Amino acid sequence: MSSIYQELKHECYEANMQLNALNLVIYTFGNVSAVDREKEVFAIKPSGVPYEDLKPEDIVIIDFENNIIEGEMRPSSDTKTHAYLYKNWKEIGGVAHTHATYSVAWAQAQRDIPIFGTTHADHLTADIPCAPPMRDDLIEGNYEHNTGIQIQDCFRDKGLSYEEVQMVLIGNHGPFTWGKDAAKAVYNSKVLEEVARMAFLTLQINPEALRLKDSLIKKHYERKHGKNAYYGQK
Amino acid sequence: MSSIYQELKHECYEANMQLNALNLVIYTFGNVSAVDREKEVFAIKPSGVPYEDLKPEDIVIIDFENNIIEGEMRPSSDTKTHAYLYKNWKEIGGVAHTHATYSVAWAQAQRDIPIFGTTHADHLTADIPCAPPMRDDLIEGNYEHNTGIQIQDCFRDKGLSYEEVQMVLIGNHGPFTWGKDAAKAVYNSKVLEEVARMAFLTLQINPEALRLKDSLIKKHYERKHGKNAYYGQK
Amino acid sequence: MSSIYQELKHECYEANMQLNALNLVIYTFGNVSAVDREKEVFAIKPSGVPYEDLKPEDIVIIDFENNIIEGEMRPSSDTKTHAYLYKNWKEIGGVAHTHATYSVAWAQAQRDIPIFGTTHADHLTADIPCAPPMRDDLIEGNYEHNTGIQIQDCFRDKGLSYEEVQMVLIGNHGPFTWGKDAAKAVYNSKVLEEVARMAFLTLQINPEALRLKDSLIKKHYERKHGKNAYYGQK
Amino acid sequence: MSSIYQELKHECYEANMQLNALNLVIYTFGNVSAVDREKEVFAIKPSGVPYEDLKPEDIVIIDFENNIIEGEMRPSSDTKTHAYLYKNWKEIGGVAHTHATYSVAWAQAQRDIPIFGTTHADHLTADIPCAPPMRDDLIEGNYEHNTGIQIQDCFRDKGLSYEEVQMVLIGNHGPFTWGKDAAKAVYNSKVLEEVARMAFLTLQINPEALRLKDSLIKKHYERKHGKNAYYGQK
Repeated sequence: MSSIYQELKHECYEANMQLNALNLVIYTFGNVSAVDREKEVFAIKPSGVPYEDLKPEDIVIIDFENNIIEGEMRPSSDTKTHAYLYKNWKEIGGVAHTHATYSVAWAQAQRDIPIFGTTHADHLTADIPCAPPMRDDLIEGNYEHNTGIQIQDCFRDKGLSYEEVQMVLIGNHGPFTWGKDAAKAVYNSKVLEEVARMAFLTLQINPEALRLKDSLIKKHYERKHGKNAYYGQK
Repeated sequence: MSSIYQELKHECYEANMQLNALNLVIYTFGNVSAVDREKEVFAIKPSGVPYEDLKPEDIVIIDFENNIIEGEMRPSSDTKTHAYLYKNWKEIGGVAHTHATYSVAWAQAQRDIPIFGTTHADHLTADIPCAPPMRDDLIEGNYEHNTGIQIQDCFRDKGLSYEEVQMVLIGNHGPFTWGKDAAKAVYNSKVLEEVARMAFLTLQINPEALRLKDSLIKKHYERKHGKNAYYGQK
Repeated sequence: MSSIYQELKHECYEANMQLNALNLVIYTFGNVSAVDREKEVFAIKPSGVPYEDLKPEDIVIIDFENNIIEGEMRPSSDTKTHAYLYKNWKEIGGVAHTHATYSVAWAQAQRDIPIFGTTHADHLTADIPCAPPMRDDLIEGNYEHNTGIQIQDCFRDKGLSYEEVQMVLIGNHGPFTWGKDAAKAVYNSKVLEEVARMAFLTLQINPEALRLKDSLIKKHYERKHGKNAYYGQK
Repeated sequence: MSSIYQELKHECYEANMQLNALNLVIYTFGNVSAVDREKEVFAIKPSGVPYEDLKPEDIVIIDFENNIIEGEMRPSSDTKTHAYLYKNWKEIGGVAHTHATYSVAWAQAQRDIPIFGTTHADHLTADIPCAPPMRDDLIEGNYEHNTGIQIQDCFRDKGLSYEEVQMVLIGNHGPFTWGKDAAKAVYNSKVLEEVARMAFLTLQINPEALRLKDSLIKKHYERKHGKNAYYGQK
């Protein structure tokens, strides 16, 4: 049966299947959404469905006030966090959440991931932020909505731009990532996991390892994202 | 040839093959059983048979007093532990035992796995218990039966419910897990292994890492298992 | 073309291919041999041949004095070590050598692998020995032959039986393992690698981790290898 | 359409695909080139193209002054480093660059990789050098060209021969490797990654681990690369 959201559901489905193919999740631990800015809705994985059983038509369509617009299934339990991010950060096209091992380990350690090298600087110029645990009254309240606020507050407190820094760790929980579309959000989840693993190993080898110096951060970020970028095809 | 236990054997066979597919075992290191509460028997892997050679008809049927009810092969050397758990914990439908690497490492370190994050709290609200090594006279006695007692004692001493905490580490040995059926027991073995790996990495990154706070433990456990759970499909 | 060693070559070929399938080697890092005690020869991998190119007919037949009996190719550079072990340890049917990562790490650390758990005790009752580096004059001499002596000396100094302890680490080099046939030698290489990984993680989690107590070592070894063993099929 | 560089492009394409098959890269993180010494050009991966999309005809042909000789696509952003190495080190036939995890971790830790064992000594007799970070004015200048200078300076300062030591870590960045052809450069990237992982684990097990002694370094290097080498086929 046709739906005006068919293409959006398909984008969302494909991105969710990538989480699995990239070894970023086991079982049902993770979810990706994709937004349609014109229609002001997003498509998201249904809750608790194993990736091997997931079908494009299972994807649920939600508006920014968390109303189900289309779909038979219950959406991801993290849906309100996605809605909050789409509503407040206008340039985001996709959001991903995983429990990828090294990303979760840094989140559980409640540590920002220091920028130790060019792999990191190829993607962002700041340490990867770890948002502190939420206040108890917010946890007992509208938890997933408040997770959105928690992310936004963290970016405000640290003076970060969500357009440059497309990833965050939620203390004691795990990573959220985003990007221009759902595929880019998943890409950022994979990059984060790899950078988290490299940083872990770096500190094991040299507990006194220094952050990358500013000139190298700038050089690598600019050659990929700056005005005169020369990485990739035109 | 038909057997009244055919379905039970098949459930057990499938669950054992999952151990292998999920990279929880090498060679013959592990076993899963499935119970039939009405018939008061359980089906278990034969001892020392490689997973690639295992066939559903090899599965052995055992009663709660450890008598072989059906089957040509010798059952798993850990059979008496399974029997003890089925006999004493009436709500269990399946039991799994592995030598999965990170789970074994915590068991060898004789440490409970601290609850560091929501991945853990999505499944249970307590640290994953590590039962202390058995007394020498019990080891020299009915060892596998006594391993069952050791598990039960550990839960009594720590005030844990086997219905909530569906996993345990046996000090210096490895994990046992259980659940409503054999598939759930295997699921819990995989979750335990992943949580064990995350906790190991967390302590490497931050040796002073704190346990997850109570409000977050409660929130995550309740949203998946509480009266008003909203994780998964209805 | 037929050879009286065809079966032996095939056993050797299959065991070498297992090294690769079990992720114990990259490129050409490793070799397995299989002995024929009646004919007093063994079959061994040719030197430096990638596993994907290896064919059964490439396998070289060697006698215990290191003469090539059959085969066009140069045998493994470690051939004299194999010959020494076959000549001196009469009950060995196969020998394997790898550069598997965790085994090599313990060898490079020049540390015996402590017996921390039942996974280890299911296979042997002693710490896995690490032979100290060879004297300089022996290195400059008949190096691979002397590696055989080094292994034998290590077992004599530590009072170990090669029939029970079927594995050794050569300090700064890597593991040699053996067994009743080539397949068992490879099995022991895989078990060693897994035990090495578990022991590494155990010490990371608890640097004060204790060796498994004697009663448990005995219980686990005996239930698999003792007179009244009840592990596996009769 | 035929090109006089078809064979060179194919060699380059195959070597780049190996990077991916050997798990040395994720996404577009890495590049390999192959040189034609007679024509004084090299073939290199186009920038930012995923390996699954890469085709032999996408490969770009460059001369030693960094002019594009053939090809529609923008070459790797690291092209000038490759050009510098080909121009200055006349015996090199291929160059590879990756962001392989353990190699990067050592680079981020700014540590040479100590020669701890024979796996290392089978390939080179020195610690694997880590070039210190570049001066700020050089970073802001012709960065990728200067990376070539940085590598050459490092080898001069440490008294190393590029013909023996076919690998380097760039501090805070990652590895470059080379060899007689592109396939050998990739082989060296894989060996480096494995040696980096072994050395990391060695130091975790024994922080006081000693370098391999000179007699063993010499023995292992010579038996593979010396005048009377007896490793491999003639």
